[in-house]
Amino acid sequence: MAKAPAVLVLNGPNLNLLGSREPEVYGRTTLAEIEAACVARGKERGLAVDCRQSNAEGDLVTWVQEARGGHRGIVLNAGALTHTSIALLDAVQAVALPLIEVHLSNIYRRESFRHHSYISRAATGTICGFGPQSYLLALDAMARLLKTEEEV
Amino acid sequence: MAKAPAVLVLNGPNLNLLGSREPEVYGRTTLAEIEAACVARGKERGLAVDCRQSNAEGDLVTWVQEARGGHRGIVLNAGALTHTSIALLDAVQAVALPLIEVHLSNIYRRESFRHHSYISRAATGTICGFGPQSYLLALDAMARLLKTEEEV
Amino acid sequence: MAKAPAVLVLNGPNLNLLGSREPEVYGRTTLAEIEAACVARGKERGLAVDCRQSNAEGDLVTWVQEARGGHRGIVLNAGALTHTSIALLDAVQAVALPLIEVHLSNIYRRESFRHHSYISRAATGTICGFGPQSYLLALDAMARLLKTEEEV
Amino acid sequence: MAKAPAVLVLNGPNLNLLGSREPEVYGRTTLAEIEAACVARGKERGLAVDCRQSNAEGDLVTWVQEARGGHRGIVLNAGALTHTSIALLDAVQAVALPLIEVHLSNIYRRESFRHHSYISRAATGTICGFGPQSYLLALDAMARLLKTEEEV
Amino acid sequence: MAKAPAVLVLNGPNLNLLGSREPEVYGRTTLAEIEAACVARGKERGLAVDCRQSNAEGDLVTWVQEARGGHRGIVLNAGALTHTSIALLDAVQAVALPLIEVHLSNIYRRESFRHHSYISRAATGTICGFGPQSYLLALDAMARLLKTEEEV
Amino acid sequence: MAKAPAVLVLNGPNLNLLGSREPEVYGRTTLAEIEAACVARGKERGLAVDCRQSNAEGDLVTWVQEARGGHRGIVLNAGALTHTSIALLDAVQAVALPLIEVHLSNIYRRESFRHHSYISRAATGTICGFGPQSYLLALDAMARLLKTEEEV
Amino acid sequence: MAKAPAVLVLNGPNLNLLGSREPEVYGRTTLAEIEAACVARGKERGLAVDCRQSNAEGDLVTWVQEARGGHRGIVLNAGALTHTSIALLDAVQAVALPLIEVHLSNIYRRESFRHHSYISRAATGTICGFGPQSYLLALDAMARLLKTEEEV
Amino acid sequence: MAKAPAVLVLNGPNLNLLGSREPEVYGRTTLAEIEAACVARGKERGLAVDCRQSNAEGDLVTWVQEARGGHRGIVLNAGALTHTSIALLDAVQAVALPLIEVHLSNIYRRESFRHHSYISRAATGTICGFGPQSYLLALDAMARLLKTEEEV
Amino acid sequence: MAKAPAVLVLNGPNLNLLGSREPEVYGRTTLAEIEAACVARGKERGLAVDCRQSNAEGDLVTWVQEARGGHRGIVLNAGALTHTSIALLDAVQAVALPLIEVHLSNIYRRESFRHHSYISRAATGTICGFGPQSYLLALDAMARLLKTEEEV
Amino acid sequence: MAKAPAVLVLNGPNLNLLGSREPEVYGRTTLAEIEAACVARGKERGLAVDCRQSNAEGDLVTWVQEARGGHRGIVLNAGALTHTSIALLDAVQAVALPLIEVHLSNIYRRESFRHHSYISRAATGTICGFGPQSYLLALDAMARLLKTEEEV
Amino acid sequence: MAKAPAVLVLNGPNLNLLGSREPEVYGRTTLAEIEAACVARGKERGLAVDCRQSNAEGDLVTWVQEARGGHRGIVLNAGALTHTSIALLDAVQAVALPLIEVHLSNIYRRESFRHHSYISRAATGTICGFGPQSYLLALDAMARLLKTEEEV
Amino acid sequence: MAKAPAVLVLNGPNLNLLGSREPEVYGRTTLAEIEAACVARGKERGLAVDCRQSNAEGDLVTWVQEARGGHRGIVLNAGALTHTSIALLDAVQAVALPLIEVHLSNIYRRESFRHHSYISRAATGTICGFGPQSYLLALDAMARLLKTEEEV
Repeated sequence: MAKAPAVLVLNGPNLNLLGSREPEVYGRTTLAEIEAACVARGKERGLAVDCRQSNAEGDLVTWVQEARGGHRGIVLNAGALTHTSIALLDAVQAVALPLIEVHLSNIYRRESFRHHSYISRAATGTICGFGPQSYLLALDAMARLLKTEEEV
Repeated sequence: MAKAPAVLVLNGPNLNLLGSREPEVYGRTTLAEIEAACVARGKERGLAVDCRQSNAEGDLVTWVQEARGGHRGIVLNAGALTHTSIALLDAVQAVALPLIEVHLSNIYRRESFRHHSYISRAATGTICGFGPQSYLLALDAMARLLKTEEEV
Repeated sequence: MAKAPAVLVLNGPNLNLLGSREPEVYGRTTLAEIEAACVARGKERGLAVDCRQSNAEGDLVTWVQEARGGHRGIVLNAGALTHTSIALLDAVQAVALPLIEVHLSNIYRRESFRHHSYISRAATGTICGFGPQSYLLALDAMARLLKTEEEV
Repeated sequence: MAKAPAVLVLNGPNLNLLGSREPEVYGRTTLAEIEAACVARGKERGLAVDCRQSNAEGDLVTWVQEARGGHRGIVLNAGALTHTSIALLDAVQAVALPLIEVHLSNIYRRESFRHHSYISRAATGTICGFGPQSYLLALDAMARLLKTEEEV
Repeated sequence: MAKAPAVLVLNGPNLNLLGSREPEVYGRTTLAEIEAACVARGKERGLAVDCRQSNAEGDLVTWVQEARGGHRGIVLNAGALTHTSIALLDAVQAVALPLIEVHLSNIYRRESFRHHSYISRAATGTICGFGPQSYLLALDAMARLLKTEEEV
Repeated sequence: MAKAPAVLVLNGPNLNLLGSREPEVYGRTTLAEIEAACVARGKERGLAVDCRQSNAEGDLVTWVQEARGGHRGIVLNAGALTHTSIALLDAVQAVALPLIEVHLSNIYRRESFRHHSYISRAATGTICGFGPQSYLLALDAMARLLKTEEEV
Repeated sequence: MAKAPAVLVLNGPNLNLLGSREPEVYGRTTLAEIEAACVARGKERGLAVDCRQSNAEGDLVTWVQEARGGHRGIVLNAGALTHTSIALLDAVQAVALPLIEVHLSNIYRRESFRHHSYISRAATGTICGFGPQSYLLALDAMARLLKTEEEV
Repeated sequence: MAKAPAVLVLNGPNLNLLGSREPEVYGRTTLAEIEAACVARGKERGLAVDCRQSNAEGDLVTWVQEARGGHRGIVLNAGALTHTSIALLDAVQAVALPLIEVHLSNIYRRESFRHHSYISRAATGTICGFGPQSYLLALDAMARLLKTEEEV
Repeated sequence: MAKAPAVLVLNGPNLNLLGSREPEVYGRTTLAEIEAACVARGKERGLAVDCRQSNAEGDLVTWVQEARGGHRGIVLNAGALTHTSIALLDAVQAVALPLIEVHLSNIYRRESFRHHSYISRAATGTICGFGPQSYLLALDAMARLLKTEEEV
Repeated sequence: MAKAPAVLVLNGPNLNLLGSREPEVYGRTTLAEIEAACVARGKERGLAVDCRQSNAEGDLVTWVQEARGGHRGIVLNAGALTHTSIALLDAVQAVALPLIEVHLSNIYRRESFRHHSYISRAATGTICGFGPQSYLLALDAMARLLKTEEEV
Repeated sequence: MAKAPAVLVLNGPNLNLLGSREPEVYGRTTLAEIEAACVARGKERGLAVDCRQSNAEGDLVTWVQEARGGHRGIVLNAGALTHTSIALLDAVQAVALPLIEVHLSNIYRRESFRHHSYISRAATGTICGFGPQSYLLALDAMARLLKTEEEV
Repeated sequence: MAKAPAVLVLNGPNLNLLGSREPEVYGRTTLAEIEAACVARGKERGLAVDCRQSNAEGDLVTWVQEARGGHRGIVLNAGALTHTSIALLDAVQAVALPLIEVHLSNIYRRESFRHHSYISRAATGTICGFGPQSYLLALDAMARLLKTEEEV
């Protein structure tokens, strides 16, 4: 039997605070709960989901780079680095894996400096505004993208 | 038994050409096929999906307005009007229904005048870049949004 | 006895929703009530007021064009088209009738994309921020403008 | 019998030249004539109109501040200070009285540096382009605004 | 004998007013006269010219789309929509027919908001500033373009 | 015994309204109370504090100029003139005294036109966001600056 | 018999490379061939065509100036100077002859710094995007322009 | 014998500091010395020179207005108000007298916010960069301008 | 007896070089000396001051996050990250503690890319331009802020 | 006896057309007449005036360079190159001679692209708006500048 | 014998991927190979080359700081941080060593956000576009720079 | 034996002044000395170096064009034309030879209008900031580029 394709779910700065940071805005779900839900949804869709978070741009760049070895796709919520990190964009372009950009909130309804995303230039697609569901929809989409590849 | 909540799937200018317009870019799926897939996915998710397309801004504004009567949510691909129509934004804000913005392609990888969306200012969330799957993911998300409301 | 000069009162996209759309912002007066008040005020001022609304730019362009035949002035609330329609500006310039631009709200207190008006380039004057009274003040001003012309 | 509510009509720099300054553009009506017409129209509408003019920003700021004591509303043509004076905007915001911005000409048809108004950010509404009639329409609107408040 | 290739001559908003609208600027030739001249010139050049005009963006989008069936080229004066309609640009790109953009006046000598054309991004070429002759020169150019294709 | 160095505390337009103007925003402390606190704090720090306020740019320019004669430093809250007055900047540069810019509120959290300060180009330092305490901290800093000079 | 009106066909920097420079983009027609075609077309239209090319702005300015003596119109492809030379614009404005701006390619489909033309501000009309045919269409238009003048 | 035409020499904010303000930049000549030199030069050129200075915009606006009565021309160094005062521009346009703008330093070599002058829009000419000589050259030019008018 | 409230003093990139880096600009005080002065001043004001420095954005984000547990306020000199780090802004907003932004130099007198601060959007107040004294003034202000809270 | 210092009067593109080019705008004085007046005025002021004109940027750059040998100052009307030529600015900066920029018209009243001058960055001063008198005033100023140098 | 001066060769984010990342763009040379070539070229030029790479801005800032101790110059390819890191610019300015900026590709031919370099503001010089040779040319230049210093 | 490949070293406006122009900035090396050094270095690297300089854009365009015949590469210091000449960019693109852009100074440390280079869009690479060494490094790089081609 084929091994479940591995998918990396990466979260950037401050997403470790989920659940306790401005809960009236970001909800009461913690990052651990989101990651558990991602693993579970991955299992349903035949994906081996692997989750990591860091506040440091360098860690995220390195993890994206390393994904080339063992992962088949990346779900990335780069947090504030979405708007400032060309280094992360370069890493994403270098690994050339399917990558889905997710955001909990609709970034286009927030301050104007959050409307621009460097990640979008290299992402397959973007899902934002659905809270923790954004991640699960991204895994559904990723499963479909990877299956399609396999079928071809 | 509760009636399935009605959801409007609206498509704007030139989306009627899908399948025949630059198929190497937009794929060979026609709008009719996408609409059929939407109805089917809606059925699976317990939603009564209703599909319409127009090349005229006025029609889309009116359809969004009328959705207040019988629909519980809207999935909208406004095509080029995404970037130019404040009238459509006003209509979306006026009806105050959950609205999911979808795009076939990742608009952030195209010409810069396609990076700005008036619709995003009023949308619950955005899903773009997954081709016809963008619509189906949006219906999944809508089903979840509406169920959540009902549960509360 | 001289026939009352005809004045066209035109409303653009989404103004048909008045009264039901965000009533805490736009008030509870419906468009029908505003139009009735315009006809009544017109009668007091010796003007035959004729009211129309459309969500479509093309209709508004055509109605402005046709005003050349039988109308002596135009009161125009172009809604969102105020900010985007050069076609409507061209129509207004072409008919060369006195035209008063009205807005219910003070558009200069709203989002920055509502601060620019193409219509203003061709309007005789502008009245905004007085809710339904904006229309009635415009008719008072129009009566004065037309009488002045006649006296000369 | 209730005392007529006092309304301040303020004119800014260079409006003292009205009638003699470029009469082909601004007309031959002098400021004194406009002020007399304002007092008369006020009387018709049950308002005690009080008129002042200054070329100095400081005077206008002080007069707006002092209006809190005895006036119920302000009609303001700030002339060139419309476009440059944040101090006047702050005064208007501080007094929190109904304020109507007026202009003789349609400022949106003039040089681009006249299209922006700091006053508009704090005004109840704006009336421009009707020559001296702009002031009289503003007093009509003010009478209505004040009566409405009283009725409530 | 080969059938004459059909060419669509499309005119956008307000061009129906030609001849009566600011004749000192736009001349006294009516749209009907221009269309007749186009048909005549087409006949001389071996083209079957088909003319339409609308004030509505949606109509123009639809007509451009439908041109794929029976027409070999398009001559388009989109009027004010030249500067605002991405939907029309998308339609032009979708049909992939030779398209010549024409304007009666030299749009680069008018207001700055008329200097940018969305249509130009997809047009084969542009001819502007020659009054009604712009259309006839465009038909000459179109005849040449179509003949060249046939020869190849 | 050495005479206490004189320090000028200047307040610009609308700061005379403190305490009564939007107290929920600016607090209930009046300008007279702030000035009294400044004099008292000055006494503690060995400074003779002299306070003035005006709504007129010309007064402030003149007072800054005159400070050269008898004052050793200036604490300046220029209010709205902070953002618009190059004349005040020139006066500050001309007197070449230590000058500390203060603001009650954090101006960088307000409208974007309040983010730019001409005064900052010539100020020794800036203290903002601490309400009336901003002035007292400025006097502490001024005492330190002047003592340092004396010690050298 | 009337002498054929003289028309100057001017080409700017790098147009001497036509035919050998990036032929897949600019085609294989040389400037000499285009000039010969211009002379021939001129003869058909009753125009005496005179052709010159230079890489130096000064030469082009001087030639445009000298055209006042003996020429009745100018066809100008200023190449890169189109976008940078105010001196050439001034020369064109000074001679006050009918001038048609031509370009081989559709400059509005190229880099954004090629979208702005100083020449357009003074040109009668513009023809671009038709390769060498742009020149011939310009001569057709010039013949028409000159004849019209004569007829009047 | 004809009376010498009166010319007003106006100086704006901070120019009263000349001689003592940054002498290494502005020189050691005081405003009184410049004014005396102006009166003397005026006498040589047959002009009655009248000098005034104020730090207040309102004073300058009023003096420019009053110049209509008895003066034939104005020499204006508006200091920092050059860059910010539309009110002063309006006054200059209203009086419609020959006005020469002068500056001691070359304002185009200073901070970018000093490169724009509202006064220039209404000035006959500008002379800057020659220190106190700028005023004397302006009076020479004014003498010439007025004489020319008289001769006509 | 109540425990002294803990305050975190954070320094960003390159501030570890203080004293040795361009001493003619930044002075000869080292970061160790500033931190010692902060601890001492804290003791005087009843605050337990805790100091940290890092060149890495990730460290600073994490330290700000962790401050929620044991600290009552933050004094932050983010160095160059002031101008570039949205991640740090997000952390500051998430912890919702009083935060005072400090800078040694007056950043508004330096290169324009140093005039914008992301931190300011979330800071209680800002103190800049006083060299090492900026930190001590910030601790004075923090003591006052925390005491005020306690008193309430 | 000391030799008269030599001054170069340089004119740029299209100034050779003076007198015949739009005489209602630029007057009927030819360049030859202006140059003769310059030589005469130079003689009165003790300057040996040397005049040259070219339409080519390269000539002007070279002439400015060569001025180092035998000239003591330059009067430069660079025409359209004023706004576009950094090469001319570099030449002016390199020769380090007193240079006075002149313009016949007030360039600040013309199109916005004429408001910026590269030459001003290196000029001693600017005189514009006085027609041919601009040159003569510049020579007066130059005589003064050179004498001052000699006296020192 | 004098010890070879030490030179630090620093590489920023994603440069560790060289050779495997988009080899058709960046070539097949790995970073290890470039570093080996740098050491070898250093030996030829009498320099002791020391190479490091990191994906983290903080590491690079710290390494630049530490270079003050033992290194005489720096060759820096900051990768994406070139365009975003003011912290790195500050470090470079603080160490005040000769620094040469290198890039493999010509960054001016890529996306516009790669055209701006913070590093360039503090670099001695820049070498870009020569692939791995950029580093070797930089070492040649560095050897020359250091020798020149020694000779002096 | 193979003939040495010819390389053109081109210098633009004002570079003929090297050595005498602001020697404290540009050094005391003359252009003749640089050209001699280039010829010598070329000989070492097996290149026949040919040097030219002009102050005229047209000459440089022509020389670049002519390089196609006999040269294998170009080293270009376009001086001020770097920032303004699209014509030179077009010439460089047309000849399609390896071209290395050089500058004596680091242009990114100078005025902002010198930060943009049209030449960079078509250059193989750029070397700037090393004074006369920039040219020699460019020849080293050119030798390598040409050899590589030959080897392939």
